[in-house]
Amino acid sequence: MTQGSLIEELAAIVGAENVLTEPDDTAPYLLDWRGRYRGKALCVVRPATTEEVSAVVRVCARAGVAIVPQGGNTSLCGAGIPDESGETVLISLSRLNRIRAIDSANNTIIIEAGCVLQTLQEAAAQAGRLFPLSLAAEGSCQIGGNLSTNAGGVHVMRYGNMRELALGLEVVLPSGEIWNGLRGLRKDNSGYDLKQLFIGAEGTLGIITAAVLKLFPLPQSVATAWMAISTPSAAVRLLGELQGAFGTGLNACELVSDIALGLVLKHIPGAQAPLARSPWHLLVEVSGESEEGVLHAALEGFLEQALKNGAISDAVLAQNSAQARRLWALRENISEAQKIEGLSIKHDLSVPISYIGEFLDRADAALKQAFPSYRIVAFGHVGDGNLHYNQSKPETMENDAFIAAQSQINRIVHDIVNDLGGSISAEHGLGQLKREEILRYKSPLEMEMMRAVKRALDPQGLMNPGKVL
Amino acid sequence: MTQGSLIEELAAIVGAENVLTEPDDTAPYLLDWRGRYRGKALCVVRPATTEEVSAVVRVCARAGVAIVPQGGNTSLCGAGIPDESGETVLISLSRLNRIRAIDSANNTIIIEAGCVLQTLQEAAAQAGRLFPLSLAAEGSCQIGGNLSTNAGGVHVMRYGNMRELALGLEVVLPSGEIWNGLRGLRKDNSGYDLKQLFIGAEGTLGIITAAVLKLFPLPQSVATAWMAISTPSAAVRLLGELQGAFGTGLNACELVSDIALGLVLKHIPGAQAPLARSPWHLLVEVSGESEEGVLHAALEGFLEQALKNGAISDAVLAQNSAQARRLWALRENISEAQKIEGLSIKHDLSVPISYIGEFLDRADAALKQAFPSYRIVAFGHVGDGNLHYNQSKPETMENDAFIAAQSQINRIVHDIVNDLGGSISAEHGLGQLKREEILRYKSPLEMEMMRAVKRALDPQGLMNPGKVL
Repeated sequence: MTQGSLIEELAAIVGAENVLTEPDDTAPYLLDWRGRYRGKALCVVRPATTEEVSAVVRVCARAGVAIVPQGGNTSLCGAGIPDESGETVLISLSRLNRIRAIDSANNTIIIEAGCVLQTLQEAAAQAGRLFPLSLAAEGSCQIGGNLSTNAGGVHVMRYGNMRELALGLEVVLPSGEIWNGLRGLRKDNSGYDLKQLFIGAEGTLGIITAAVLKLFPLPQSVATAWMAISTPSAAVRLLGELQGAFGTGLNACELVSDIALGLVLKHIPGAQAPLARSPWHLLVEVSGESEEGVLHAALEGFLEQALKNGAISDAVLAQNSAQARRLWALRENISEAQKIEGLSIKHDLSVPISYIGEFLDRADAALKQAFPSYRIVAFGHVGDGNLHYNQSKPETMENDAFIAAQSQINRIVHDIVNDLGGSISAEHGLGQLKREEILRYKSPLEMEMMRAVKRALDPQGLMNPGKVL
Repeated sequence: MTQGSLIEELAAIVGAENVLTEPDDTAPYLLDWRGRYRGKALCVVRPATTEEVSAVVRVCARAGVAIVPQGGNTSLCGAGIPDESGETVLISLSRLNRIRAIDSANNTIIIEAGCVLQTLQEAAAQAGRLFPLSLAAEGSCQIGGNLSTNAGGVHVMRYGNMRELALGLEVVLPSGEIWNGLRGLRKDNSGYDLKQLFIGAEGTLGIITAAVLKLFPLPQSVATAWMAISTPSAAVRLLGELQGAFGTGLNACELVSDIALGLVLKHIPGAQAPLARSPWHLLVEVSGESEEGVLHAALEGFLEQALKNGAISDAVLAQNSAQARRLWALRENISEAQKIEGLSIKHDLSVPISYIGEFLDRADAALKQAFPSYRIVAFGHVGDGNLHYNQSKPETMENDAFIAAQSQINRIVHDIVNDLGGSISAEHGLGQLKREEILRYKSPLEMEMMRAVKRALDPQGLMNPGKVL
């Protein structure tokens, strides 16, 4: 099949206006959010239904043409960007964005892959329910991408990753066949749990087209506080005390270094420091079913006690939801502020929570010795052991000189992570960014198990080549 | 290799005293708890370490001998019982039962497959933590079996199934190689999540030898109530109201039919009806971090309101933990009481919670028409949509005549379940009991996907043959 006839066949399925080939049209799909990966594609196809996705994949499979699925194009690892061969078909799921059904009694929603996360959050709230996944890109990232990277974010400690939030999937397989696994069941042990294969597979085993997701009761009250603390180890101790006091009512426990906060205050209009500066900060959110005043009083009592025993040096409790949103904006805008500041080398890592302090001590010491001018921007989800541990370019350094150190810095950081039993990709996935790096840390046996799964489900190797494996 | 030399090789690995071949020694391993499946085995091998399991599997793989892994032998589907060929090796994991480590700050425990669930619960409590999996067989079922069947139980609505409770696994693969996936991380997206393959696979893809499991803060207070209600649909409405009032603090919401309660009162010494009899009962447990009195008052207030508006006709609130345990015993002893009463035909099904009422209406009507003398014993986890929907033998009927109706009854029940988008195995797995039945309800595509996974991981087909697939 010639490329021309392939494009004609695809146009016959989705309409000519949904097969993009002009550089001006395809450009937004071929550059990632961070501007680090630029790819080429034979065309960008925009199917609007699962059946169209299926037909597109069948045509590609018959022609032996590789496929790159893409959602909101917010990957931090280049997972949705094709290689530079220009021989792949990029399938954008953006038009597949309907909410198919909400079942309030079952606390479930059936939603298509191209729906934006924030749209889902809002639809749930309108039905008097909570969809708890929340992360900085929620205004543009899409559900298919959230599932394909097993997205995490700030509420994992209470509600789990995307994997725990998904009850069923609909997937177009590499053959083009549609697997209907859209079951809305909280217990189903009738054979292998096939949906688990596709969650977190970054589009390398099939294309998720729809999902049944869990909803939760809307909490009746929320309380949010910002604390000044001295060290990450103090944050881990506070986490334990917060869990003792609020149990599973603890929604989020976010660590922010003063450098990270400083970048937000510098670059994000309207951002204000909530307290006097301190080496580290902790943003905490609890929710529950007691009246707002009762929960606030409980958190206030906790803060008073922590101030008294020296666990924190200062604290502010949000008095209303607008104040709470402003505190959260300080946390959520760190990535944006870093981007404005200039290039950065990012690490999305996790370690057992008990090792957070040790990790930061060791990594900071090693990097300050090797690269004393590189600013360390550390923040993350202390309740999940997930840190974003980034290096920002020194203001006077050239981009090329800065980036040249990337693999050396990765090596230092990732070796310490590995030594502590951690993961070099906690929530962003591997994409193309960490595909080779992971070979240093996974056993050959584990890599071979992954390849066996890939061969079993995608024997032609057409799904998102060059990602993960 | 002759059978004799195989046994000699196995004895060299685990010691002759741990290779059982005498009928008196092997008998307990070859009959299931319900007395429905009796198998034969070349021998029963009892390794004490992961390395011994590995060596045993290597020997079997080399000899082309099939393997049946067995934990506490509490499967309700015959998953741990070999076929009648007498040519398989049964590997009992009971001696592999150590707690390897507890990390309180990380809220994790590393535990071996042969550890009894109750032992794990107690070890967690001693460390000031909760391990939330709880089910009737907890005094004898083992962690490896809990993982292999993705066990559920009464606290799934709050804490998830075993799948959600597992962070990492150690698995002996069908080749005998040991896969070390014992990571204690709440976020890890560094490639395919291979542990998901083994959880719920009923030993058909490898042998789980150890796991890293999540622990939780011990709730500071628990409140338990028993309510009298008129219909299952009333239970679903109450569930929604309880979720609104207690949010994720609702631990359990168990539906019990009056016939089920009657069997417990008849057969279990000391069992007492907590209220006047009623067509249906609901057992509810909430927990939280407020003081005991506050939580009790909240549940009491809820019950008063529900009495006033007619949602329930009577209720009792446990005044102390002994009373709570007695209420729970009424629920937990249903299976035992059914067993004493005589043969039963069991269904472990789930439907979307919104369809629980419709399921029971339709299934009751169909069965009462087709088998008017069969008593319907219904109970289950309404918060997960999981019902145990069983038929007890009429007192005057012969066993053979009763069992002869089994496939006809299964057909009636399972067709309705399937029609409502449910599962014919919610938490017990497929084992040998439902291996053929599932073919009626899964699409050929889904079965082929399962077979592709099986071939990829167990190309020789030696792991627990005749189960699941």
